[in-house]
Amino acid sequence: MFEQLGLIGCGLMGGSFALAMKRAGLVKRVVGYSKSPSTTERARQMGVIDVEAPSALLAVSGADIVLLAVPVSATEATLKAIKHLVTPDMLIMDVGSTKRDVIDAARRVLRDHVTSFVPCHPIAGSEASGVEHADADLYYGRQVILTPIDKTSTNHVQSAASLWEGLGCKVLRMTPEAHDSAFAAVSHLPHLIAFALINSISGQQNGKDFLQLAGPGFRDFTRIAASDPKVWRDILVANRHELLDQTKLFRQSLHAMEQLIEHGDTDALEQAIAHASDTRANWRMGSKKPA
Amino acid sequence: MFEQLGLIGCGLMGGSFALAMKRAGLVKRVVGYSKSPSTTERARQMGVIDVEAPSALLAVSGADIVLLAVPVSATEATLKAIKHLVTPDMLIMDVGSTKRDVIDAARRVLRDHVTSFVPCHPIAGSEASGVEHADADLYYGRQVILTPIDKTSTNHVQSAASLWEGLGCKVLRMTPEAHDSAFAAVSHLPHLIAFALINSISGQQNGKDFLQLAGPGFRDFTRIAASDPKVWRDILVANRHELLDQTKLFRQSLHAMEQLIEHGDTDALEQAIAHASDTRANWRMGSKKPA
Repeated sequence: MFEQLGLIGCGLMGGSFALAMKRAGLVKRVVGYSKSPSTTERARQMGVIDVEAPSALLAVSGADIVLLAVPVSATEATLKAIKHLVTPDMLIMDVGSTKRDVIDAARRVLRDHVTSFVPCHPIAGSEASGVEHADADLYYGRQVILTPIDKTSTNHVQSAASLWEGLGCKVLRMTPEAHDSAFAAVSHLPHLIAFALINSISGQQNGKDFLQLAGPGFRDFTRIAASDPKVWRDILVANRHELLDQTKLFRQSLHAMEQLIEHGDTDALEQAIAHASDTRANWRMGSKKPA
Repeated sequence: MFEQLGLIGCGLMGGSFALAMKRAGLVKRVVGYSKSPSTTERARQMGVIDVEAPSALLAVSGADIVLLAVPVSATEATLKAIKHLVTPDMLIMDVGSTKRDVIDAARRVLRDHVTSFVPCHPIAGSEASGVEHADADLYYGRQVILTPIDKTSTNHVQSAASLWEGLGCKVLRMTPEAHDSAFAAVSHLPHLIAFALINSISGQQNGKDFLQLAGPGFRDFTRIAASDPKVWRDILVANRHELLDQTKLFRQSLHAMEQLIEHGDTDALEQAIAHASDTRANWRMGSKKPA
């Protein structure tokens, strides 16, 4: 049980965390700060936070747990803003989709206090953004990846793991490098593809007409294309080396299938589709609840 | 109200059509044929069809309406098998995702009787296949595209339109060419990309580990990758010219974003993502029920 959560960033991810923590009885009080005062006010009105803080630093004052829920490129500036109030007993977590850049920023800014920082990535989210979509169930049943480094306090890692488990999550640990490789493939690349596909279609002369005909397959395939631009700009740039390696492999895979289609090699094409189809049909999302 | 539906292909699409027609009271009797006798038997046991036919020709005997629900490359052989029993009063429809190749086959085989053939594409489906997944609601609320040609009987087109409307569908008409262009972009390309992405990831050394980490975004993005290999092999090859034009545009769009990422041009990248995000967030599926 924590006394006070200092929430920095009261959007979808941060707001949902605050709601879940309260519902689980894991925190007494939430003090929140968002860059936009209207977001902070709205979060208080909605009961997502209890007290509005006028700065990140004041959100951290008196907190025994801090969550950074800001676009990953804002991590460094946020840590700079709060570093004077960080104590060894304070658990600081983030929810960023990339981990190496976030850890680098934490090392640079927090120095010895980097022991307090447990890098987290809950595999949850929504194409909707903003505190209006905050949902106490967002994290329930999902996987959460912790990527502690050598300096991270073991106690804080255990505390973070217990906390996420208390929210109904399945906790995994891995290195920041392994994390960033994996999510380049299964998350960052799919988002990039979805953005590129929408822009490719909408940029065509008949693009609007085409889009009006699209059905449920397209709806699900492109859902992630509606994601927050600032958040995803940061992720794609922060993990660009791994991501560009993945786009290269994807292009090769696409090209191989295009060749089969162009040459009418129906047997090999059917085999390639069957391989994908079997793989996907047998895939189950790692979680505590059914996919 | 039709007397007898001759159903050729008792899988997901055909089976769902039979169930929907019966529920709507639009047909008295369904005689079904599938290439695999066990499918036909299962369809009868499930009440999807009333009578098992031992051949496509016998499924058509006595029918006033015929539905071809087979992979598009099987259209020509199926029409050849039934052509001796086709009459001018018989309404023949298909449910294929490509229209030019199906129409070419119908012209070649049916000749003067091509008047009976109304090419249809209901924008509905599922990554699941087989009669076990037949669902009376599959078509409800969805769009159905009719692509009649000059020779198609106006009465049959009206009859087909009324029938689909009776199943709760929104009926649109367009040329086969416009249909195939649009669906290359909004359906065939997304399927190809989904197949290629799954094969790209699963072909990597750590691919299996990567897949275990994937979350709800990946789940929805790749749902269509589990689609039926024979059905999609046919569609991708049948519409290959339009499809390969679309892959070219998609590659350009992807490349442009990759360049922005590589050069760290965050402003232009955010703009490109925002364009995609706004477009997708404002998109609504054309249907009679909410997306």
